[in-house]
Amino acid sequence: MSKPSPKKVVLAYSGGLDTSIILKWLQTEYGCEVVTFTADLGQGEELEPARKKAELLGIPAENIYIEDVREEFVRDFVFPMFRANAVYEGLYLLGTSIARPLISKRLVEIAAETGADAVAHGATGKGNDQVRFELSAYALNPDIKVIAPWREWDLTSRTKLLEFAEAHQIPIAKNKRNEAPFSVDANLLHTSSEGLVLEDPSQEAPEYVVQRTTPPEKAPDTPEYIEVTFEKGDAAAINGEALSPAMLLTKLNEYGSKHGIGILDLVEGRFVGMKSRGIYETPGGTILLAAHRGIESITLDRGAAHLKDELMPRYAELIYNGFWFSPEREMLQAAIDKSQEHVSGTVRLKLYKGSATVVGRWSEQTLYSEKHVTFEDDAGAYDQKDAAGFIKINALRLKLLAARNRR
Amino acid sequence: MSKPSPKKVVLAYSGGLDTSIILKWLQTEYGCEVVTFTADLGQGEELEPARKKAELLGIPAENIYIEDVREEFVRDFVFPMFRANAVYEGLYLLGTSIARPLISKRLVEIAAETGADAVAHGATGKGNDQVRFELSAYALNPDIKVIAPWREWDLTSRTKLLEFAEAHQIPIAKNKRNEAPFSVDANLLHTSSEGLVLEDPSQEAPEYVVQRTTPPEKAPDTPEYIEVTFEKGDAAAINGEALSPAMLLTKLNEYGSKHGIGILDLVEGRFVGMKSRGIYETPGGTILLAAHRGIESITLDRGAAHLKDELMPRYAELIYNGFWFSPEREMLQAAIDKSQEHVSGTVRLKLYKGSATVVGRWSEQTLYSEKHVTFEDDAGAYDQKDAAGFIKINALRLKLLAARNRR
Amino acid sequence: MSKPSPKKVVLAYSGGLDTSIILKWLQTEYGCEVVTFTADLGQGEELEPARKKAELLGIPAENIYIEDVREEFVRDFVFPMFRANAVYEGLYLLGTSIARPLISKRLVEIAAETGADAVAHGATGKGNDQVRFELSAYALNPDIKVIAPWREWDLTSRTKLLEFAEAHQIPIAKNKRNEAPFSVDANLLHTSSEGLVLEDPSQEAPEYVVQRTTPPEKAPDTPEYIEVTFEKGDAAAINGEALSPAMLLTKLNEYGSKHGIGILDLVEGRFVGMKSRGIYETPGGTILLAAHRGIESITLDRGAAHLKDELMPRYAELIYNGFWFSPEREMLQAAIDKSQEHVSGTVRLKLYKGSATVVGRWSEQTLYSEKHVTFEDDAGAYDQKDAAGFIKINALRLKLLAARNRR
Amino acid sequence: MSKPSPKKVVLAYSGGLDTSIILKWLQTEYGCEVVTFTADLGQGEELEPARKKAELLGIPAENIYIEDVREEFVRDFVFPMFRANAVYEGLYLLGTSIARPLISKRLVEIAAETGADAVAHGATGKGNDQVRFELSAYALNPDIKVIAPWREWDLTSRTKLLEFAEAHQIPIAKNKRNEAPFSVDANLLHTSSEGLVLEDPSQEAPEYVVQRTTPPEKAPDTPEYIEVTFEKGDAAAINGEALSPAMLLTKLNEYGSKHGIGILDLVEGRFVGMKSRGIYETPGGTILLAAHRGIESITLDRGAAHLKDELMPRYAELIYNGFWFSPEREMLQAAIDKSQEHVSGTVRLKLYKGSATVVGRWSEQTLYSEKHVTFEDDAGAYDQKDAAGFIKINALRLKLLAARNRR
Repeated sequence: MSKPSPKKVVLAYSGGLDTSIILKWLQTEYGCEVVTFTADLGQGEELEPARKKAELLGIPAENIYIEDVREEFVRDFVFPMFRANAVYEGLYLLGTSIARPLISKRLVEIAAETGADAVAHGATGKGNDQVRFELSAYALNPDIKVIAPWREWDLTSRTKLLEFAEAHQIPIAKNKRNEAPFSVDANLLHTSSEGLVLEDPSQEAPEYVVQRTTPPEKAPDTPEYIEVTFEKGDAAAINGEALSPAMLLTKLNEYGSKHGIGILDLVEGRFVGMKSRGIYETPGGTILLAAHRGIESITLDRGAAHLKDELMPRYAELIYNGFWFSPEREMLQAAIDKSQEHVSGTVRLKLYKGSATVVGRWSEQTLYSEKHVTFEDDAGAYDQKDAAGFIKINALRLKLLAARNRR
Repeated sequence: MSKPSPKKVVLAYSGGLDTSIILKWLQTEYGCEVVTFTADLGQGEELEPARKKAELLGIPAENIYIEDVREEFVRDFVFPMFRANAVYEGLYLLGTSIARPLISKRLVEIAAETGADAVAHGATGKGNDQVRFELSAYALNPDIKVIAPWREWDLTSRTKLLEFAEAHQIPIAKNKRNEAPFSVDANLLHTSSEGLVLEDPSQEAPEYVVQRTTPPEKAPDTPEYIEVTFEKGDAAAINGEALSPAMLLTKLNEYGSKHGIGILDLVEGRFVGMKSRGIYETPGGTILLAAHRGIESITLDRGAAHLKDELMPRYAELIYNGFWFSPEREMLQAAIDKSQEHVSGTVRLKLYKGSATVVGRWSEQTLYSEKHVTFEDDAGAYDQKDAAGFIKINALRLKLLAARNRR
Repeated sequence: MSKPSPKKVVLAYSGGLDTSIILKWLQTEYGCEVVTFTADLGQGEELEPARKKAELLGIPAENIYIEDVREEFVRDFVFPMFRANAVYEGLYLLGTSIARPLISKRLVEIAAETGADAVAHGATGKGNDQVRFELSAYALNPDIKVIAPWREWDLTSRTKLLEFAEAHQIPIAKNKRNEAPFSVDANLLHTSSEGLVLEDPSQEAPEYVVQRTTPPEKAPDTPEYIEVTFEKGDAAAINGEALSPAMLLTKLNEYGSKHGIGILDLVEGRFVGMKSRGIYETPGGTILLAAHRGIESITLDRGAAHLKDELMPRYAELIYNGFWFSPEREMLQAAIDKSQEHVSGTVRLKLYKGSATVVGRWSEQTLYSEKHVTFEDDAGAYDQKDAAGFIKINALRLKLLAARNRR
Repeated sequence: MSKPSPKKVVLAYSGGLDTSIILKWLQTEYGCEVVTFTADLGQGEELEPARKKAELLGIPAENIYIEDVREEFVRDFVFPMFRANAVYEGLYLLGTSIARPLISKRLVEIAAETGADAVAHGATGKGNDQVRFELSAYALNPDIKVIAPWREWDLTSRTKLLEFAEAHQIPIAKNKRNEAPFSVDANLLHTSSEGLVLEDPSQEAPEYVVQRTTPPEKAPDTPEYIEVTFEKGDAAAINGEALSPAMLLTKLNEYGSKHGIGILDLVEGRFVGMKSRGIYETPGGTILLAAHRGIESITLDRGAAHLKDELMPRYAELIYNGFWFSPEREMLQAAIDKSQEHVSGTVRLKLYKGSATVVGRWSEQTLYSEKHVTFEDDAGAYDQKDAAGFIKINALRLKLLAARNRR
């Protein structure tokens, strides 16, 4: 693998210590021009400090990109994914996975705008994020170079990193002097924590790991009810108030955080082969998933619903593994989106100490027919005798099997 | 459809009013000998009253079968199903579905023992249970006749049923005089409630519908921790105490009921075509599912786990639709069972006000390798540079696509 | 099942003896007005005799619908299905299955135009076609009544049918006096033969069963080469000559028939439960399938191609079972169609004594990169060392498994 | 990626020029002891010359392993795969893919026997075989080192290879002096040809590429009939003569080769990302696949058969990608094997100029019921009126959808 020699590189830059070190390392190691891209994905941090940091490290103003991409994130990535009811390994709502393709997309676009020939990211060589960043970048520009400093450099210990920072006048926040107890990723959909104190999966995570969500034990003692309205598969209003995608998810996060909803302690299988343990907080997303299944339960036909359920694990795996921009993800999305044309209506949920429970749902598009299902007189809507033929024909092959097998 | 003319029929008999009416109706309508089969599936009712009722209705002692099948139920039906993490339509733990094949199996076996040529059940023509009973019966004995009185008779209103009962001296419990507000099925795995006050899916179910589980609001204010130990995919001990399958599930039910776990309000798609709404209580099963996923998370390889997740919806659908005794369910079971050989170890769960949360898991069979995943020095266990090649090769087809698509 | 009492019924009318008897039976049994629909699906029979027959049986001109639907058939049904490479049970090209939804669609549309409240077809109660006709009709008009005389009447023997025909002055062709040796269905895609002399699946079908295709032994001794050009997944030209869908399939049929291509002797599992044996001739379709796979082989990415292959059996089953007009078929179609955007180019095939073999393929949309695959110097297009990392990372989970399993 | 430093390496050794160069290179580059493993997989070459070559290159007799593994190959690899009707990308019978795991298995076993710490193979860095060899080796021994000289050395041109050979006194056959026109792999199941004259996929392969099979045009002008008998999914006899697995496949190869059967010209998607074109000859395997589908068609229930068809593409992909020794392949195998318990009986095939066509099949395990399927009087085996109920219930959800969609 011959080393790339980039002329100009767009760096996914958070403004934190690690990506600041990367910024400087790119300048010194490759002698290349650096463009920084800092995105507001709803991680809950100010962006302007990142601008100042970049300026301090010598990046000219025209090379500093700072953008609020929250609406795009929710509208074009989170919502399409929730149409699929996607969960990875039965439980994980893919909060980190779904943000990576958007960042790569902007990196590649900014590279095209600025004439850069490379992009760089701060993900390590052990995780899934490197794969997600890079597959997305290559899928969008097959000629782009990707720099992954963590896989390349020799700054392999905290000590060496801090030495490098000091040697290059990179400011180090006081609390960064000591090893952080775990690693955190956050965006509007979720916060994940991994590593260090969490590395023993037999031990319960310390309470301080949970950052964004009220622990269920401290959540209100009284349930709260909300109503989420969907239009063609996407949430569009809460309690009757129409909201943009990002605003809606923000609001759901408030409800979820308040009621202790969406905390997950998971050991998962990484695409790069080992298992890892993470604590995930997805307060609004957990409500959204319950609500979406709720509205589908009355508006989606069984045939479509079951096919969706069968396709979902593959779809979730593709997103987890970094194949958002792949033809097979797009094929599955086309199938899923096709199913959502009538998924409109309102779901009522009860929020209480960690649970978001659907307690009611209604829709002009409902397929629920009280007339057909009633225990009472159905006025001929359904002829029970039809069921006899239905069963007989379904049984025929089983009867032929049984007769054969006892021959 | 010419009417069958059974000589001797084995009836799935609960001892309740409806199956007592069926018993009498079979005698009068078909003039046939009736054998009753009453099973203890853990529904929580005494069986001896059913014996008395049957005797009262003229069934001779040798035609009355009363059996405790709880161990067989959990060992041969519930546990194999939980190996698959089976949920129907994303949520339903299949508590009713999984009991039906066992009942049919015993009906057919008793028919063979007693020389009966038919079996009968009390399921209506609108539901899934008729299908489950009958497909199972035909799959086990292709020559058996099945009588489904609800699809045949003209006792189409509550009034007519009560008149028939009175005319035939069938005792009617006082509370049965008035229409019951909903229909209930129960066994060791779950209790389901359907119909009447539940028929409007927009309305929250009244609290009295929940019969077996403490509502989360009334559950203890302090979390309780338990440890569930698995051997080859099946739960085998709680808090270190080895328990038989049925005793283990009974114990989990106690924990779950106490902590308000496993209440589900669902609108589902029936196999016979319409949607219905049910309230399901699966206290122990809900804990068991969480625990099983927990132990799989460290003992099951990603390749096996993801394949299981993809097969699961089909497997669940087969059970829901009544195809337990089908070659395709058996094929899927073979695949699932194959995956469980190393699924042994212990899971620690926190139970609190409706939630069963995995907080720790450990196993001699663990695949989790702290050595590989650590953020700290891994002493060469994993070469981060390998990841570069991994990504490059995975990206190749995407790059070829991107290059093609911009031609 | 109370009998429907239709006022006016649209009958799928071939002009043959059986549907003429049905026509008369509908008039006499139900006393209802009959509208006839006769379609040219490419079955190779004149339609005008059907008009004369209908007139003879008293149908007024405005109630006689005779239509050439060949282009619609190929464009909207056959081609979408071939985009999926659909084969049922590994072999059957679904020639009968795919024609039924179109016929039902026109029956329902004509019912709406003529104010009819029912449709009728001539399929028997043992086959798949009744299901296909009726599911399609109900899916397009939930209130339509469907009359299936073969399931209703008592004309259960050839003798009774002929007596009924004679009694009602229905002309009987001489060769219809004697029992036909098997049953035939034909359209532009295929001809199927079933029943009677074919009912013993151990016996080779007599040569006279094959009606439309030259037996391979009698086909030309010299191979012939043709080139089929595709645009976005659909065949559009043969040997450079652009052709409409139906004309293209007609032409392919000529090539296929000449060279003995597409004869299939199959035992298949019917949706209604039993197995049946058929001889299918699909001369043009067999070439088309080979050619479509050929063009996909260079224009479709592996990820998309493999997903298609996994979805295909379900898709084919849905069509076979009559669920063309179902949301799940439409979802799969959306996924399949999404994959075909770049499936354009030309395939060269060799036709010889029963085989259609792809021998060359080229496309402006090709993903085949000689630069990458060459055994010779690739000028750095592919770094073989990347493969080492690729394999190492793919192997990691297997190594962790192996280490665990020998603990 | 630090270089491994093996002490003793087991080399997959064909005796040909390339693996002889590898042998010498291992000795000179790593200074390590070499053990050679030469297997008779039915490739049709003498093995004793490989022994002489190895001796000539200084390998002591106890380090030379020469084995006939044909029976193991067919019994434990080919036959299990054919139970699944496995084809990759719709067409390829996986002849190369299925041989690699067996070779790796023996390499790893011999390493254990001889105390070697590494294995080596002669596959290049562009192909699938490196992946198959190495994943299998790691899955069987997580600590084994794998040497892939083609990815490591600088012998990157034919000239350099020949120079190396000459410098080390490796005999060079005359015809090896000139670049071979393409690359060939062969075993009892198939022969594949790739590269060079085949690299332009638009050009028909020259006739001399086909080495093992009579071209259809030169095959006999008269069809030949054979009967293949299966026991529990595996072929066991031809024309009534019981044969061991390898002998049976050898015999089928003779029939297939004689009649021009099983020649395939394919562009396929490699696991390492690019597309490649190959000519595959699988004469006996092609007959075997047709025969196996034929016996399944009467002995396998529709439910099992369709599930098998849905699982097959994934199963084939796993084998193609080198994951034979993976838990997910073993899960699928368990499901497939479960389905084969009754797949016993005989299939009659017609072999003629490139085609192997099933013309008859019979079995004591047949599920085909002439009684049920007959067009003639079925004496009540099947009640056509049942079909009405079957259709009505299947239609219910479609009717509810149609009613909803026109609201």
